Amino acid sequence: MTQGNVIEGVYIGNRFNLEKLFGKVFADYSDQVRLRHPHEIEDPEAIRFALAWHPDDDAFTPYPNLSLVSSIAAGVDSLVSCPSLPQTAHVTRIRDEAQADLMAGFAVWQVIWHHRNMGQYIRQQATPKWWQHPLDTPPKDYTVGILGYGLMGKAIARAITAAGFPVVAAVRTSKTNDADSEIGVRFETGADAIQRVAAQSQVLINVLPLTPETENILNADLFNQMSHGARLIQLGRGQQLVDDDLDTAISTGQIGGASLDVFRKEPLPEDHPWWSNEKILITPHQASDSSRALVAQQVTAAAIETVAGRVPANTVDRNQGY
Amino acid sequence: MTQGNVIEGVYIGNRFNLEKLFGKVFADYSDQVRLRHPHEIEDPEAIRFALAWHPDDDAFTPYPNLSLVSSIAAGVDSLVSCPSLPQTAHVTRIRDEAQADLMAGFAVWQVIWHHRNMGQYIRQQATPKWWQHPLDTPPKDYTVGILGYGLMGKAIARAITAAGFPVVAAVRTSKTNDADSEIGVRFETGADAIQRVAAQSQVLINVLPLTPETENILNADLFNQMSHGARLIQLGRGQQLVDDDLDTAISTGQIGGASLDVFRKEPLPEDHPWWSNEKILITPHQASDSSRALVAQQVTAAAIETVAGRVPANTVDRNQGY
Ligand SMILES: NC(=O)c1ccc[n+]([C@@H]2O[C@H](COP(=O)([O-])OP(=O)(O)OC[C@H]3O[C@@H](n4cnc5c(N)ncnc54)[C@H](OP(=O)(O)O)[C@@H]3O)[C@@H](O)[C@H]2O)c1
Ligand SMILES: NC(=O)c1ccc[n+]([C@@H]2O[C@H](COP(=O)([O-])OP(=O)(O)OC[C@H]3O[C@@H](n4cnc5c(N)ncnc54)[C@H](OP(=O)(O)O)[C@@H]3O)[C@@H](O)[C@H]2O)c1
Repeated sequence: MTQGNVIEGVYIGNRFNLEKLFGKVFADYSDQVRLRHPHEIEDPEAIRFALAWHPDDDAFTPYPNLSLVSSIAAGVDSLVSCPSLPQTAHVTRIRDEAQADLMAGFAVWQVIWHHRNMGQYIRQQATPKWWQHPLDTPPKDYTVGILGYGLMGKAIARAITAAGFPVVAAVRTSKTNDADSEIGVRFETGADAIQRVAAQSQVLINVLPLTPETENILNADLFNQMSHGARLIQLGRGQQLVDDDLDTAISTGQIGGASLDVFRKEPLPEDHPWWSNEKILITPHQASDSSRALVAQQVTAAAIETVAGRVPANTVDRNQGY
Repeated sequence: MTQGNVIEGVYIGNRFNLEKLFGKVFADYSDQVRLRHPHEIEDPEAIRFALAWHPDDDAFTPYPNLSLVSSIAAGVDSLVSCPSLPQTAHVTRIRDEAQADLMAGFAVWQVIWHHRNMGQYIRQQATPKWWQHPLDTPPKDYTVGILGYGLMGKAIARAITAAGFPVVAAVRTSKTNDADSEIGVRFETGADAIQRVAAQSQVLINVLPLTPETENILNADLFNQMSHGARLIQLGRGQQLVDDDLDTAISTGQIGGASLDVFRKEPLPEDHPWWSNEKILITPHQASDSSRALVAQQVTAAAIETVAGRVPANTVDRNQGY
């Protein structure tokens, strides 16, 4: 039986078994919070918070006193778009610096994959064949564009500039932050900032959050701004990419290759033609992940803050969508 | 016909066709230097400098007035070990910051290859199979060791620390340089610095120059210092690795995987078992390359300095061997 001061929560979403993923780490906080599956809950009015990922449309309906809905990850798009999300509940994300490091390493790996055409060495090893390719473009002449200059985008910029590549990022309000200019990141602002970043990029990295504004943002118009043969690294959300437009751009050579980590439908169906496209490198939504221990820590802290009537840390702007 | 003040030089070495690689870029300096093949030279006494790579043992013998021997690359091991290298000739290397950037990107790519086990995603795509692997080790708990903290090692450290990995480097004299400590590199010094670096490293990167001291330095003793399953990234010279010791360490799992860019015999023979070893990633000595235009610029400048009686920039210490 749970103590009177333990805050009651519910797992919401069936894409993953959230108890299997997080039950163990939340056990460390069992004197502060308790999380159960919907079918285990006798008194829905007692539920104050939810740990959620891809909720069904009516998933939140049973809980009239829900005041906090926390994502298991950096992205909250599947929560804020849920019709039954209570109007007054705070929505929080996970903010994990170690995840940003993972993202940074993954992104720089993908940039080098394209810049140095590393896939050819893997194919050569399979042959086997020793063949030295000239290194055409020094890093300083290979501009990397970043869409989404938040926790992830900044860490990515740090890793990529350190490998000698110029970075240009699209931002909404101009940045005067010393740390950013110190590492040499340039910024484009204004209505067509994203287009102008794309136009300068040999490789374009997307880590925008999914919002109504960013849906379908990776489309033919954007690809046509880019120099012929430029590359795309897609680490945001599948709904930001117009799949057919990518196929066309790749077939014409306008996009010379792509790394895709996120997809409209995940898992990517086994019969999808992208799996066998030599110009596309597929990873199964694994660019980065938040630490489970940190999820338990941040969600517990948020639950305590919320019940105490304060706005918890890492609360997103529900209207902005991130 | 060449002008009286044009400095005469010779291409030395048959591993590559040096004229094919560098003839065009040296054309920009035709009023200052002229480079020809040995068989084209009527007056060997007129030859003041050589552009050299893997010279034959007696390659320098015909030229009594040779006062400069320049490498085409960062390494000079094949020059300083040549028996006919004139006692009094300056030996220079190429010093190319853009090459250091290439090296940095290549090295961080290899670190992430091992850290994130990227090969598994490439194999999964071929199947095809969507499979999310947990990310066991955050970058901050995955120490990268660097052997050889010179132009290349420092650039590598910069890129790897920026991706969130701790870096420890073996150096001969302790470093108090602000730039190094600012990016968080730790140093081991003293007689067994290399062993102590290896002992702490989840991944060990070798970019030492080949000298009598560093020959066979990557051997069973060193591998046994490392934690079980640690990885090796070999970017220095093939003669620094005891091939059989690596095979043993890989077969026992002591070394969990290796990236090899340099080999005792290059090209690596097609029937070598490493080509088909899943735990070994092979690249054909392509970690980085110096810019050809810069080779022409630096070698021309060195020839002018030498003929004027000055010690040219980028002169190596022949006794140290780098
Ligand atoms: N593939 C993976 O494994 C993985 C892992 C983690 C995250 N992600 C994705 O990456 C996204 C970003 O994560 P994060 O932690 O960096 O989020 P964040 O810290 O909230 O940063 C988002 C950034 O995007 C900017 N932005 C939002 N809408 C924009 C628009 N229309 N135009 C220009 N900029 C816009 C924001 O600008 P302002 O500064 O002006 O607000 C903010 O800087 C997540 O939402 C998720 O979809 C994917
Ligand atoms: N695979 C490729 O494509 C590729 C490309 C470029 C270079 N390389 C290899 O990388 C090597 C290094 O290049 P670099 O430009 O960085 O040379 P560098 O600037 O001369 O640096 C060499 C560094 O190694 C250190 N060192 C030498 N002997 C040592 C020893 N016994 N113990 C500990 N440290 C030692 C030196 O220490 P001190 O500071 O104390 O002198 C120096 O810091 C080259 O010689 C070449 O073999 C390979």
